[in-house]
Amino acid sequence: MTPDEFRAAGHALIDWIADYRATLEQRPVRTGVEPGDVLSRFPTVPPEDAGSFDELLTALEDRVVPGLTQIQHPMHYGWFPANAALASVLGDIASSGLGALGISWESAPALTEVEQVVCDWLRQLTGLSEEWSGTIHDTASTSCLTALLVARETAARSYDDQGMASLDRQPVVYCTSQAHSSVKKAALLAGFGEANVRLVDHDPSTFAMDPDDLAHRIDDDLAAGRHPVAVVATVGTTGTTAIDPVGAIVDVARRHDGIWIHVDAAMAGSAMILPECRHLWQGVEGADSLTWNAHKWLGTILDTSLFYTRRPDALIQVMSTNPSYLWSKADGQVVQYRDWGIPLGRRFRALKLWFHLHLDGADALRARLRRDLDNARWLARQVEAASDWEVVAPVPLQTICVVHHPDHNTVDGVESTNAHTLRWVERVNASGRAYLTPTMIAGRWIARVSIGVETQERHHVKRLWRLMCDAAQSAAAEGAVPDGHTSAFDGSER
Amino acid sequence: MTPDEFRAAGHALIDWIADYRATLEQRPVRTGVEPGDVLSRFPTVPPEDAGSFDELLTALEDRVVPGLTQIQHPMHYGWFPANAALASVLGDIASSGLGALGISWESAPALTEVEQVVCDWLRQLTGLSEEWSGTIHDTASTSCLTALLVARETAARSYDDQGMASLDRQPVVYCTSQAHSSVKKAALLAGFGEANVRLVDHDPSTFAMDPDDLAHRIDDDLAAGRHPVAVVATVGTTGTTAIDPVGAIVDVARRHDGIWIHVDAAMAGSAMILPECRHLWQGVEGADSLTWNAHKWLGTILDTSLFYTRRPDALIQVMSTNPSYLWSKADGQVVQYRDWGIPLGRRFRALKLWFHLHLDGADALRARLRRDLDNARWLARQVEAASDWEVVAPVPLQTICVVHHPDHNTVDGVESTNAHTLRWVERVNASGRAYLTPTMIAGRWIARVSIGVETQERHHVKRLWRLMCDAAQSAAAEGAVPDGHTSAFDGSER
Repeated sequence: MTPDEFRAAGHALIDWIADYRATLEQRPVRTGVEPGDVLSRFPTVPPEDAGSFDELLTALEDRVVPGLTQIQHPMHYGWFPANAALASVLGDIASSGLGALGISWESAPALTEVEQVVCDWLRQLTGLSEEWSGTIHDTASTSCLTALLVARETAARSYDDQGMASLDRQPVVYCTSQAHSSVKKAALLAGFGEANVRLVDHDPSTFAMDPDDLAHRIDDDLAAGRHPVAVVATVGTTGTTAIDPVGAIVDVARRHDGIWIHVDAAMAGSAMILPECRHLWQGVEGADSLTWNAHKWLGTILDTSLFYTRRPDALIQVMSTNPSYLWSKADGQVVQYRDWGIPLGRRFRALKLWFHLHLDGADALRARLRRDLDNARWLARQVEAASDWEVVAPVPLQTICVVHHPDHNTVDGVESTNAHTLRWVERVNASGRAYLTPTMIAGRWIARVSIGVETQERHHVKRLWRLMCDAAQSAAAEGAVPDGHTSAFDGSER
Repeated sequence: MTPDEFRAAGHALIDWIADYRATLEQRPVRTGVEPGDVLSRFPTVPPEDAGSFDELLTALEDRVVPGLTQIQHPMHYGWFPANAALASVLGDIASSGLGALGISWESAPALTEVEQVVCDWLRQLTGLSEEWSGTIHDTASTSCLTALLVARETAARSYDDQGMASLDRQPVVYCTSQAHSSVKKAALLAGFGEANVRLVDHDPSTFAMDPDDLAHRIDDDLAAGRHPVAVVATVGTTGTTAIDPVGAIVDVARRHDGIWIHVDAAMAGSAMILPECRHLWQGVEGADSLTWNAHKWLGTILDTSLFYTRRPDALIQVMSTNPSYLWSKADGQVVQYRDWGIPLGRRFRALKLWFHLHLDGADALRARLRRDLDNARWLARQVEAASDWEVVAPVPLQTICVVHHPDHNTVDGVESTNAHTLRWVERVNASGRAYLTPTMIAGRWIARVSIGVETQERHHVKRLWRLMCDAAQSAAAEGAVPDGHTSAFDGSER
């Protein structure tokens, strides 16, 4: 494809994207496709001859968009706000157009140094001290794995020797059952073994880690000859945006040498651009690494997981490689981000953060997040004021966890309420007018309302509340027989 | 930013990208910036107020582009061809514009199913049997780590128990010293320990793994009570595009139970769309996993590392998570790519492969790769025909490894030739007219000419050959005193 062919197609694509974003609200939020529907509309054999761009635009419209849950829709309240702000999309487009290759400073100095710039800007914006150095990973899963690998190696020093199999003490990692599934996954991938993933108790009403239980478990493991090597504290859990008490956790962990403290603020990190929210990670300056996803609430498009550490030397020691074909005279004077994570090659991801911050400005980002916090508090007040509804977890940020109790159901216990919750949530989702994701907390199903889509205003949240009330009433009237959706779940918490 | 503001800025950006690509050849290939130059041209504090898009376009032109080594320049012969074909860039732009979120099939069915489609198209195009299932990872480093983690868990079954520290036998992984640095890195991250990374002998002239030595080392390890768990065979090494004999390696490894065979064809995989090249990975059907980077020679923009396995169940067993907030009624009927790798969230990367294949067509991709192979053979013939030049490794693909021997230097031995090589390569690179990367092979510095930039035609390669001859002559005339560039290297092979 020549630059002029690209120019013509590119203009058409920009218009298509602008139209798509402008008309998003007219689409159903949840896709109606069934498994295999999209697949079946593609040829089974690859294209031998060049095809037209018009065909692709038509296919985007007819085959792709109907096959997506519309995450950017202002009536999307599922999972988490996965904003893809158009300002950041422009940065992503610039990155694609440049086609730069980050494998060393020399291959693309600007790619490296703009990443240093924007990571430092976000360090300042979130109120972190100058002790922190940052880089961009793809996701918080990768960031957590990176942290646990560095923790393991720093504690066990298996490098340059016989590896983990020669360790004389079992290494242990601590988190709560409310931590993201990626924490356990990372611990297993890092070779800790499930028996060495210690689920510390959490407060039954706030879902926050109990630091006293952490202290006891560390003591028990030490007494049993095991080796505590890492604590993962979550600031803003996936289920309820619960806030582990970072300061108290740091105090406990620092009674012992060599425990790496990683703070997983994937969701809540965005809020730290608001000074009034920073009490939520009070004590973070005592941690060793932290991660938060600018591709969630802040709105820089995937994949933009920020990873900060106060101990870059430990990170580099574990991650560095230095093959001769990557040597250059700049070595030793520059940052080599290949030594800050798992992949060697990297895209120019800093551009999307730069464009986003430059075009929107920090002030406007703060205003938007404050709008969302107001909307969340407004919805929480409505739910609390309604006699048949319950807010089942604290609302420190933008996620409201709710249960509806229909009159005829109140005596039927948890099982019936669970079925009712799944039924009314499915009614909302099946309508295409809004989207929520349920989750299981402490053995019962709850509905999560995750606020924070970029274009989501108060009137959208009001509309959601009406939809929720209507769906809950209809579901209650319908009776207690579980529908197809409900039966897809086996009810056990995993 | 509103859709209409995006529309205006997007059109300007598309034009800027088209102009950038059209005028690339007028720019110096290697950036002239010094460490810190780019950084110093950015504000040290983040932008509080919204800025204009024009400022960004100016900054791209003035601060970013001069700070990049122009990987897409037709006179770029460094590292490897990291093509970012404009057809694939359009797919990347569509992905950014959609802002889809891949965390489960339900969040974006089209994201999942188009990935299934394009991975299967590329399976067919590279002549792999239907036994292989594919997914897209970011880089071959991540793919190799994934393979070794699955190998470790499949062999050692440390899941659901005490982890690696409880293993009674040291797990061992096998590769050669010519394998990419990411293989050793992956082995260390996977906890094998450096003492358990076995560097199998390679043929001194082809740089290919010696399968007899592999057999001996496996036997030795078994006799010593260690546990052989993985072999990484490289098809197209980074240094010389050497080809490990996959068929013979499979035959050796399959004499024992449970050795995972991973084929790292990061560079050479693209060539497998040419039937005449497939003898280079003869035997690959006996492997367990393989990876190749469509973001190299094939030209789909970063990050598009294809990972195939004949054992998806083993992969899923190691990588799967299933938290309640991701359950849906489609579970069990659909592919959940979060269980095929490390990250949970994924971009819609399949679009760039789809757009690339659709807009260019497989026929044209094959023609381009054949052009590059012809160009490489042409250059190899010129080098071979010149009495003062030497081709120092076989040329199975598009990389030519060369050394120049100036007359007055022939008696001075390896050290002097090394200095001369670094000197003339630096002359080429400093001219801005072409770019090469030297590497150290078997104790001596060689120059690598890596052919295969999308816009690189025969006349570019002819021009390079003239530049190489001129630079080598000038460097020889200049004498034997190492310059600044040379002294940056300590001369040891790492």
